[in-house]
Amino acid sequence: MQHFGDALIERVRALGNPLCVGLDPYLDRIPPLFRDGDMSPGNPLTAPAVEAFLKAVLDRSTGKVAVVKPQIAFFERMGWRGIRALEEVCAHARKHGMLVLLDAKRGDIGSTADAYAGAHLIPDAPMPADALTLNPYLGMDTLEPFFRSARTYGRGLFVLVKTSNPGSGDFQDLKIGNRSLAETVADTLNAKVEELAGEKTGWSSLGVVVGATYPGEAERIRQIMPRAVFLVPGYGAQGGSAKEAVSGFVPGPNGLEGGIVNSSRGILFPAGSDTNSATDWERAIDAAIGKAVTELGEAVAT
Amino acid sequence: MQHFGDALIERVRALGNPLCVGLDPYLDRIPPLFRDGDMSPGNPLTAPAVEAFLKAVLDRSTGKVAVVKPQIAFFERMGWRGIRALEEVCAHARKHGMLVLLDAKRGDIGSTADAYAGAHLIPDAPMPADALTLNPYLGMDTLEPFFRSARTYGRGLFVLVKTSNPGSGDFQDLKIGNRSLAETVADTLNAKVEELAGEKTGWSSLGVVVGATYPGEAERIRQIMPRAVFLVPGYGAQGGSAKEAVSGFVPGPNGLEGGIVNSSRGILFPAGSDTNSATDWERAIDAAIGKAVTELGEAVAT
Repeated sequence: MQHFGDALIERVRALGNPLCVGLDPYLDRIPPLFRDGDMSPGNPLTAPAVEAFLKAVLDRSTGKVAVVKPQIAFFERMGWRGIRALEEVCAHARKHGMLVLLDAKRGDIGSTADAYAGAHLIPDAPMPADALTLNPYLGMDTLEPFFRSARTYGRGLFVLVKTSNPGSGDFQDLKIGNRSLAETVADTLNAKVEELAGEKTGWSSLGVVVGATYPGEAERIRQIMPRAVFLVPGYGAQGGSAKEAVSGFVPGPNGLEGGIVNSSRGILFPAGSDTNSATDWERAIDAAIGKAVTELGEAVAT
Repeated sequence: MQHFGDALIERVRALGNPLCVGLDPYLDRIPPLFRDGDMSPGNPLTAPAVEAFLKAVLDRSTGKVAVVKPQIAFFERMGWRGIRALEEVCAHARKHGMLVLLDAKRGDIGSTADAYAGAHLIPDAPMPADALTLNPYLGMDTLEPFFRSARTYGRGLFVLVKTSNPGSGDFQDLKIGNRSLAETVADTLNAKVEELAGEKTGWSSLGVVVGATYPGEAERIRQIMPRAVFLVPGYGAQGGSAKEAVSGFVPGPNGLEGGIVNSSRGILFPAGSDTNSATDWERAIDAAIGKAVTELGEAVAT
């Protein structure tokens, strides 16, 4: 059985970069090469066009990228046809050897959490993913069905700890004694992180989300949870640098490791990709992936 | 334009009870009358069977119930066919004059939150709902796209404050100074609650989730936010009594008001409903709705 933490870190080591390609299909930015109809969310032609676009991006990413992160909201925006497209996109990525981290930030009580785990993190799931993002606000018991999928089927989990948005401090920075709420959440999760650590790399299948825009907090959270893989949003379009993005990383056999760094808009909609020419589009996407791979590769090189 | 807070409370006043029927279709509990095939989540026959079952429940609820609350996780469990069934169920409920509160507990950063609001809370949304549940962990800026739907389209929002599950205290009860995190979230939300208060009833389109299993906390949260409608889970199957469920309610023209009390399993799968007889099934559902309507009606009577 695959162990998510081991599988992810081994792929990142082999590729030499921690890039995670975020699949956030903004409908008004899909390039002319793939557009069909008016691209309104309710048009039945829209979801298949988005699916073709993202599969083409995945084809450019194969062999260069360890993991891709579809954001389910952008598919939900298109209704059931969007969800059908998401299922196809996830299957395409997995078929081409990339891990799929579904960004859904789910969090709900027992039986409902079971249903979410069943939707994504078990063998017969209709929208199978290798890992899922989760929200901790409801408490540890609500995460238990997902821990079960991690133990039983080797799936991965990323729990929100410190997010990348400007307002993340409203609650995450509140002080509980001398620690922030984010640090308290990290501390509470850490026993499970240890329990789900991999035998090959030591990295756990239970990771956390820690935004690139708060490097100081990333370092404090790393102290609290040495084996948790960090999913780092906020690199690129959101303003975090490659160096800031890897601030929670630690030395490993091939350089700094222990996290993946997401880039969505920077990869999906780079300069030069707003074109009708397949050749020009491929060149633009290849250049965007190449740039991120190089920047992040340099940031983790020791 | 409809104002959610006003529309909800006016319907509850007219009907004399604050029951919210939760639509949580556990696949293994769908009665023989509606089952088709093996009812496995991946079977294409399953979602249409669930849809027929829930539409039949909605037909029994018409004229007795102000609001219904589909839990999206149980539909997501069936993949895109489940989401298609959810869209049909939401449309059916709204056509029959019931408000639809979609229980999705969404929470994500700006552009992603926009996509969720677009999926559910704008006029051309593919899965239109009158209101949506939200998670506050990411911060106030992440709720802004939903506040916009409330202001512009009169939609309703219910933000998680104190949930009904046993582990809700792990983070929600942590002390920030002399207040719990839940109370701090309530306090932070309250300016928006006031801003979104209705002109007819004074009740706001921004409500909160406060579990029936913690009546003391409900009373403290009511002190903090006098105009917020409480969505109260935990009544019935989860162990909260009708009296506990209305502990955050306040006197209104027709009795205690200011909240809705959810019952899911108690209404969908009552004793006597596990049958192949349409007559027996209808009798069992009518009795279950009648019992909840009576219990909650008595609890709010002054």
